[in-house]
Amino acid sequence: MSELRKDPIIGRWVIISTERGKRPSDFISPSHKRKKTVGFCPFCKGHEFTTPNEIMAFRGPDKMGASDWTLRVVPNKFPALHIEGDLDRSGDGIFGRMNGIGAHEVIIETPHHDLSLASMSTKSAADVLWAFYSRMTDLRKDKRFKYVLIFKNEGEDAGSTLEHTHSQLIALPIVPKRVQEELDSAKKYHNFMEKCIYCDLIEQEANINKRIIYQNTSYIAVSAYAPRVPFETWILPRHHESSFMPDNNDFTYLAETLQSVLRMYDKILDVPPYSFVIHTAPFTEEDNSYYHWHIEIFPKLTRTAGFEWGSGFYINPTSPEDATKYMREVL
Amino acid sequence: MSELRKDPIIGRWVIISTERGKRPSDFISPSHKRKKTVGFCPFCKGHEFTTPNEIMAFRGPDKMGASDWTLRVVPNKFPALHIEGDLDRSGDGIFGRMNGIGAHEVIIETPHHDLSLASMSTKSAADVLWAFYSRMTDLRKDKRFKYVLIFKNEGEDAGSTLEHTHSQLIALPIVPKRVQEELDSAKKYHNFMEKCIYCDLIEQEANINKRIIYQNTSYIAVSAYAPRVPFETWILPRHHESSFMPDNNDFTYLAETLQSVLRMYDKILDVPPYSFVIHTAPFTEEDNSYYHWHIEIFPKLTRTAGFEWGSGFYINPTSPEDATKYMREVL
Repeated sequence: MSELRKDPIIGRWVIISTERGKRPSDFISPSHKRKKTVGFCPFCKGHEFTTPNEIMAFRGPDKMGASDWTLRVVPNKFPALHIEGDLDRSGDGIFGRMNGIGAHEVIIETPHHDLSLASMSTKSAADVLWAFYSRMTDLRKDKRFKYVLIFKNEGEDAGSTLEHTHSQLIALPIVPKRVQEELDSAKKYHNFMEKCIYCDLIEQEANINKRIIYQNTSYIAVSAYAPRVPFETWILPRHHESSFMPDNNDFTYLAETLQSVLRMYDKILDVPPYSFVIHTAPFTEEDNSYYHWHIEIFPKLTRTAGFEWGSGFYINPTSPEDATKYMREVL
Repeated sequence: MSELRKDPIIGRWVIISTERGKRPSDFISPSHKRKKTVGFCPFCKGHEFTTPNEIMAFRGPDKMGASDWTLRVVPNKFPALHIEGDLDRSGDGIFGRMNGIGAHEVIIETPHHDLSLASMSTKSAADVLWAFYSRMTDLRKDKRFKYVLIFKNEGEDAGSTLEHTHSQLIALPIVPKRVQEELDSAKKYHNFMEKCIYCDLIEQEANINKRIIYQNTSYIAVSAYAPRVPFETWILPRHHESSFMPDNNDFTYLAETLQSVLRMYDKILDVPPYSFVIHTAPFTEEDNSYYHWHIEIFPKLTRTAGFEWGSGFYINPTSPEDATKYMREVL
């Protein structure tokens, strides 16, 4: 029997079409699979001159050379938004607009072309998270910005145009719609229950123990209760925290959690394209009792661009309980 | 200069990245292009036995034979929802679910494998709209349903698995999130302004005349002000009407409008994959003064599945004003 499920936070319904009951092997396709080809790569060591000027980089002690980096942050060469200028809001009747002010940066996660975020060392993955945090902390000072959207598109089918592993960051003068919806809903829940809905979700998932993919002392990774796509996974900090930040000044546990999920994807879905987005509170309300930052990860396995995308109503052929089982088998 | 634009109805922000300024030719790709191959097709005349039993069909006068149809509606062979059963709502803490009760039907728009909704006669296209309306009217009688979602995915990249032109319909015990958001926002606007926001949008678009793609006495087709993707187009009835229905008992003008938009896509984007979704009021509030039914159409040209899909924040490389110009050039 199929089932209709409602996302507890933003109220989106999905059909879990268990009769279609797709297994991981049903999604594997050689054309999907992420590849590493040989050829000139602007993100590789020695090609620093091909990117715009470095915003930030991690280098070892006594390493000062241009190519002595382990991680670099550079402006996007084709930025969607520009850093110079005023916001200049304007409207015309029911229409509202603003100048395209913002920052668009690229985090080059490693100098090694053949590594991925899943296969690099935990230390390197933690450095990537530190770079996110550090850039966010810096951009917060710019009063024009309300939000920093941190995300990664990996593989061509997930929208990535360069295969060298990298993430992106966009600083925005607005709050993205999905985050605003989560905030509004989390606020309502908190007004009513005087609790954080995400904290309740974590507690309930721990009690039910049917959708936990991975956990350690600080983080929990669960299959979403009403996933839009097969294998949609959320990583949440166990303790209430509204904004993305390290746990006890340490990103090791988060790196471990994220890498564990990505490694499970790579194993059961044969190195699939995927995306993740960090959901965090806006700068204007960065420390509050209702919102709980988290990461949403989804492999890009199916074509969801049709009616689902246009209606906000999704059909998912793999239940999150099955997805959890498949993921845990390879742990 | 890039621009941030806010959708006047549901408040989603998009970046119109005019510096990327993509032209129609930038999106054309032989792998995208919709193709018609030879091979066994379950939707072709003479193969009626391969589909589940007909729910409805259009036949000419004195044509009673199984293969004498011009349009057929059949249940989806692999339905996402099932028609038999009770809704049986249940919940577990913050999680809510319901049995997967609903109807999932396929509208086979023509017996001719080589035709498309764009290339068939206006009379045939109007018949497709009559089939939508007729099925909706019938399913409305079932008190378990709140909404009928009518949509079309055309081309493999838009999620279609069969190339013979067809549309789909899903009757639901819930209201899809996007429609609910539109309803909520249209209601708020109406409370404040005592006007329909879509009526105001139509009036303003007519005055500005920068985003009108096509119009006739009954309908207007415009490029969305804050389009998620290049060439996103909305068709709206000029006169206020909350639920999808014929104009003066006639679907000719709507068929003409829809076909005109699809023919422009085919010409400038070289027969691209596309989807459309009919947005109409739920059965429980089908005649009201705040909501205005419309069709949202979007060619599937770019990979939008990454962060955009996860954050609800879109980057669009073609402004709707440019899209309108390109479309009107081929009119």
